[in-house]
Amino acid sequence: MQSLLRELTTLVGSAHVLTEGDLSAWEQDWRKRAHGKALAVVRPGSATEVAAVVQACSRYRAQHPDTRLSIVPQGGNTSLVVGSTPDDSGQQIVLSLQRMNAVRSLDAANLTITAEAGCILQAVQEHARAEGFLFPLSLAAEGSCTLGGNLGSNAGGTQVLRFGNARELCLGLEVVTAQGDIWPGLSGLRKDNTGYDLRDLFIGAEGTLGIITAATMKLYPLPAAQLTAWAAVPSMQAAVTLLGLAHRHLGAGLTGFEVMGQFALSLVDKHFKQLRVPLFQDWPYCVLLEISDHESEAHARTQFEGLLEAAMADGCVTDAVIAESLTQAQTLWQVRESISLAQSEEGLNIKHDISLPVSRIPEFVQTTDAALAHALPGVRLVNFGHLGDGNLHYNVQAPIGMDPAVFLRDHEPEVNRLVFDAVVAHDGSISAEHGVGSLKVGHLKHYKSPVALGLMRTIKQALDPHHLMNPGRVVEI
Amino acid sequence: MQSLLRELTTLVGSAHVLTEGDLSAWEQDWRKRAHGKALAVVRPGSATEVAAVVQACSRYRAQHPDTRLSIVPQGGNTSLVVGSTPDDSGQQIVLSLQRMNAVRSLDAANLTITAEAGCILQAVQEHARAEGFLFPLSLAAEGSCTLGGNLGSNAGGTQVLRFGNARELCLGLEVVTAQGDIWPGLSGLRKDNTGYDLRDLFIGAEGTLGIITAATMKLYPLPAAQLTAWAAVPSMQAAVTLLGLAHRHLGAGLTGFEVMGQFALSLVDKHFKQLRVPLFQDWPYCVLLEISDHESEAHARTQFEGLLEAAMADGCVTDAVIAESLTQAQTLWQVRESISLAQSEEGLNIKHDISLPVSRIPEFVQTTDAALAHALPGVRLVNFGHLGDGNLHYNVQAPIGMDPAVFLRDHEPEVNRLVFDAVVAHDGSISAEHGVGSLKVGHLKHYKSPVALGLMRTIKQALDPHHLMNPGRVVEI
Repeated sequence: MQSLLRELTTLVGSAHVLTEGDLSAWEQDWRKRAHGKALAVVRPGSATEVAAVVQACSRYRAQHPDTRLSIVPQGGNTSLVVGSTPDDSGQQIVLSLQRMNAVRSLDAANLTITAEAGCILQAVQEHARAEGFLFPLSLAAEGSCTLGGNLGSNAGGTQVLRFGNARELCLGLEVVTAQGDIWPGLSGLRKDNTGYDLRDLFIGAEGTLGIITAATMKLYPLPAAQLTAWAAVPSMQAAVTLLGLAHRHLGAGLTGFEVMGQFALSLVDKHFKQLRVPLFQDWPYCVLLEISDHESEAHARTQFEGLLEAAMADGCVTDAVIAESLTQAQTLWQVRESISLAQSEEGLNIKHDISLPVSRIPEFVQTTDAALAHALPGVRLVNFGHLGDGNLHYNVQAPIGMDPAVFLRDHEPEVNRLVFDAVVAHDGSISAEHGVGSLKVGHLKHYKSPVALGLMRTIKQALDPHHLMNPGRVVEI
Repeated sequence: MQSLLRELTTLVGSAHVLTEGDLSAWEQDWRKRAHGKALAVVRPGSATEVAAVVQACSRYRAQHPDTRLSIVPQGGNTSLVVGSTPDDSGQQIVLSLQRMNAVRSLDAANLTITAEAGCILQAVQEHARAEGFLFPLSLAAEGSCTLGGNLGSNAGGTQVLRFGNARELCLGLEVVTAQGDIWPGLSGLRKDNTGYDLRDLFIGAEGTLGIITAATMKLYPLPAAQLTAWAAVPSMQAAVTLLGLAHRHLGAGLTGFEVMGQFALSLVDKHFKQLRVPLFQDWPYCVLLEISDHESEAHARTQFEGLLEAAMADGCVTDAVIAESLTQAQTLWQVRESISLAQSEEGLNIKHDISLPVSRIPEFVQTTDAALAHALPGVRLVNFGHLGDGNLHYNVQAPIGMDPAVFLRDHEPEVNRLVFDAVVAHDGSISAEHGVGSLKVGHLKHYKSPVALGLMRTIKQALDPHHLMNPGRVVEI
């Protein structure tokens, strides 16, 4: 494969074909579950260079049909499902988009921004904000993850309720196909019915059908005010009732609706003493609500007060606070966002990123909590998530006193089966916003319609017949 | 083919295999541009029956490879691009979804409605409204078109600005594939990242990849109030400026933003005297704005007044009225919606359904108006559309005194070329919301990226290798 490496060096420059030294930043996944060995890390600087790299690999593959040479596209390498690291064959090219990090343009009248795949999400947000616009995609890894990875995995986050996933925010793509052609689809159009929806096919395909090199995304006017409230609720059903009231009272002003279970919050309280978690001690769940208002903070506050008054009268809220300042609001969000770290402090657990119809969540939680307690007495549930989207991070922590590593080793398959069976029985999905990657690809054959899997295989086979692009992810051939 | 017809009769009942009498309701397109001859009109009553019909046709096709037997799925047969009528070969089955018109369920807590493909759009709206919800897809043909056709063509309409096209409103589909399998994808999930986006591939594919038999769609709380305003603007650039102001002042409350050129409004004034078109005589364009408010009519009015005050100060609005009653609002909308009929009264014209980045519309209009006037002196432009989505219906009417039929015959190709060249030069699309059908399929090869067309052909070939499904539409093989 030395001849291929020489060719790639010619194409992108020797400084951008990495084969020596510590490559673990590219070879190891975010949660340190997998550490592979790449043939090389290749960092093209333009879509033309990406296309040339793909063509070179495709040619090499055709000339050496017995090789396992393939390409793993990578952005910020923050996948939670091992979606962007090489296997240990030493025959995979990590194609890093890191150098393609320019914001190409911002069109104020069209409310769009066009940026390259390697742009850090936060940089896109900041570029938009500096021009007076909101780019609403927001998630925990935003300081490291890239726009291309967000689109490849159809990322979600905390504002999906109002603005949708990465998919709904995208108007157009530039993509290098598995054949090394460039599809120049960077449309800033809200409407375009001239054929099949190629854009949404590449979004969420995790680099298995082609490589996203740039995207045109929607912008929104910056809200005049954002306000955060925190409410204790007597049950998950009450949280769902509150959500319905919030939709009616706040309309599109409702931009965040997060639910957090008591045990999840108790871990934040235990491991981040300085944070002062409100209202969690007497109630099974708390809800964090965010409102974005195009008028004023005063208007937002009146709206929130009206909602909470109605909710207290209904009984679905037992106690609540509205943040009095930006700092207070940030602290409430910090509590919410510290749950992930707090559970790590408590020890490894079995993570699930599931979604359900909102209406079925109370029953799902009640029966699945009980089934887990029955199967594994003492087990503890770190249950939190984006209730407004029907998305729970339903994580299962070892009983007190049991070594978390032993718990995972002995019980992960059993816990996954129990939770996923319950998810599917309630018309849910076993991967809501994190994607499939390597971690979940084996689960799909049990939990997804065979017809859907057949269609996926047909599409993969048609668009990438030599399995050059991120093989083994999303779809098993 | 008699054996096939006998088999189909066994599958769906003889009352639902129509071969005799006047079948023009199914054989002739909405705008009476094409009148074909079907082998039969088949009307299955369930997804299982649809699947059985497809399987029977697929088998027959395999056994008779020299036949041109194929299937044309049809809903309300209101396509504006000849997308759902049979050709004149007598070898196409029209598969009508008319009998599949049940609303299967409404999930209030999940804000979703699940309905069959043959549901009339207005029936879906009314079902939702009766339960206190808004189903926001709304377009001129809503009394006749069906949900399946809306999804097959990714319909747009008047509220796309706020709620998106049919695609953005859809969460899940039930689809019969070209192989006659049923994909049970009726998810009510806001997030599901378990593989390729099959849903969006079938949406907008105009029945060329499979047949949508049911869908789960998003609902919204009914707004507390809706208010309509009408503003005269001194230029298209001023209309774009007003749109930007409206986004900032009204946020997600802005649910409609329609622009109408002076000549378009003069035709309404001429042919529908009773309607009283406001403010059009002194200004080149008028804009119709709609606000939806979750608080109250008083709040909506204050919002509108604030916007219009700012717009008058800016100079982008020269005069404006806010409807004082629901009746007045309906009259304003009636003026907007009468443009299509008024232009028909004036005689046939050359229709375009184009989209552009909003920021480029003023230049597009200025240069294309001038180019048309230069190429065809005296030509008249019926220019109106959903400016908030960048979507114009940019129709070209014969000069006064020229026979419209002669004008179309002699000038349609030239006018199309001039307009479409200008659209593409301004990064636009030659089909915004009406789709491709038969009418525009030949244009795509000139105006769409060859890479995109190649991907489309590959997908069609992979999912429907025998070209059983609506051949000749969307993609030329």
